[in-house]
Amino acid sequence: MKYLFSNVLGCFIFDNQFNLIEEVKFIKTEDYFKKNKLEPELNKKYPDLVSVPPEKLSSILSFFKDSKFYSLFYQKNLELTKQKIKSSVSDDTLIIQTISNIEEVNKLGNILAKRLREWYSWYFPEFSESIGDNEKFTELIVFRTKSELLRELNLRDKESMGADLKEEDVKEIVLLGKEVLQLYQLKQKHEEYLKVLMARHCPNLLELAGVTIGAKLLEFSKGLKHLATLPASTIQLLGAEKALFRHLKIGSRSPKHGLIVNHPFIQKVRKEDKGKASRSLADKLSFCARLDFFKGEFKAPEYKKELEAKFLS
Amino acid sequence: MKYLFSNVLGCFIFDNQFNLIEEVKFIKTEDYFKKNKLEPELNKKYPDLVSVPPEKLSSILSFFKDSKFYSLFYQKNLELTKQKIKSSVSDDTLIIQTISNIEEVNKLGNILAKRLREWYSWYFPEFSESIGDNEKFTELIVFRTKSELLRELNLRDKESMGADLKEEDVKEIVLLGKEVLQLYQLKQKHEEYLKVLMARHCPNLLELAGVTIGAKLLEFSKGLKHLATLPASTIQLLGAEKALFRHLKIGSRSPKHGLIVNHPFIQKVRKEDKGKASRSLADKLSFCARLDFFKGEFKAPEYKKELEAKFLS
Repeated sequence: MKYLFSNVLGCFIFDNQFNLIEEVKFIKTEDYFKKNKLEPELNKKYPDLVSVPPEKLSSILSFFKDSKFYSLFYQKNLELTKQKIKSSVSDDTLIIQTISNIEEVNKLGNILAKRLREWYSWYFPEFSESIGDNEKFTELIVFRTKSELLRELNLRDKESMGADLKEEDVKEIVLLGKEVLQLYQLKQKHEEYLKVLMARHCPNLLELAGVTIGAKLLEFSKGLKHLATLPASTIQLLGAEKALFRHLKIGSRSPKHGLIVNHPFIQKVRKEDKGKASRSLADKLSFCARLDFFKGEFKAPEYKKELEAKFLS
Repeated sequence: MKYLFSNVLGCFIFDNQFNLIEEVKFIKTEDYFKKNKLEPELNKKYPDLVSVPPEKLSSILSFFKDSKFYSLFYQKNLELTKQKIKSSVSDDTLIIQTISNIEEVNKLGNILAKRLREWYSWYFPEFSESIGDNEKFTELIVFRTKSELLRELNLRDKESMGADLKEEDVKEIVLLGKEVLQLYQLKQKHEEYLKVLMARHCPNLLELAGVTIGAKLLEFSKGLKHLATLPASTIQLLGAEKALFRHLKIGSRSPKHGLIVNHPFIQKVRKEDKGKASRSLADKLSFCARLDFFKGEFKAPEYKKELEAKFLS
């Protein structure tokens, strides 16, 4: 009877007196990952080889108590851990990071745009009032002069309540405006990048859910692997946790949909069908996540057609 | 006995039967501001002219009840209000707006820099750890390659725990980094502009308090006029309202200084002198605000020397 024992240093074979017979050292750290191939080979060489039963383990471990192993163990473990950390960064990580950055950039853009409006209002309050969209407002005040904008509102300069600021004062407002535009542009670029990431990682999910909702599903479920294991009913309610727990706790109405509520398909469906449609969409999204995780076919366009035929005809 | 009554429409003279004798209409809205010059002239013309006593006011006002005045009143009042709003925007307004924007931009820059660190850490965590300053960190990762940075930390690529990201992934991180730098640059430009604003509005305050503290004093006191009327002891504690009310309410130690605590002079003073020094500085700042408000001399450098002679020698 012989015993086989493997650790980060190598594969070790002991006789039944626990004396070392043979050792295959892992020279490079990566060799450790070949363990599963090496062990069967050793098994062939020693037909009476068994893995160490628990009650004998302490005798084997005492062999490794020798201080000559200490620094080796430390070093190999450290390297292995580093490699594991390194390989833990996946497309999932990047997608989740990117979608949350996009949301942050968008939020900050809006904060600055609000400041910009406040500041610009000292100069030309009527214009700030006349236009609701932050991005469009910013573009106009950056690229047009006040007199052009006055003409657009059919106002004469004298009629405006805005102060007559000096050129240097206006220049500073425009600087802030340019920054706001930069932020919105960055958001757009990140969204294009996110699309590329998702096209290589989860094409089906991208096709059916769209960039933002697809990425947010990954964010909420902490990655494609987990999303693929979720039941459709959970996917349907991802992002509606608050409403769900309120339902469970105080018996308010159960939520019909989580973040998929913003999906253009759900938006188009008749109000009385929204619940059913959400359920069907979540079903198909769940299929997509599984197809993508197991590198299956590209079936999302088919699903899309099915859904539309069922609810939008 | 004749009565003089002025309003936004003009100056009106009535006899003692309250019949109109003469009227001087304000054709342009701006004429209203010449009222104080016009009234003495009318007084010369009619030596027995008096302003309307309160008990006769209703008889005069009934004269204006005529509906032909309605739209005129409406229009003139609107124009005057607009003009008042227009002229209410002062350098104070711009300074307060600018300092609060600077703080916002700085905050947003730091939020994005934190995101950037998080994102970059997937790629090269050791570098993010090695450098504390956000701005310097961002500059380095934008303008240097990973291999250059690795060399700087004396690391080989294999030793880093960071993932091997594709070029397109790194490009996206650098895009965010550039945005962060833009925000910091915008902050700097706004600070230069703020200096220009303050140099023309309150040179003494700028000289003694510095840009940021000076502007924040104006922000907290809502303008130079109000700052000039504040007692020095209030200026000393501006920005320490929380601590002051805690002191008044539960008897904790009274605060020694508000936002002037960050003034380089207070920072340099020996700890046991900080209270006295804050008081003296607030004294001089109060002088500065008054000099600036009443367009007085430029005495701040003198004050600075006095303070330094008293506490830093």
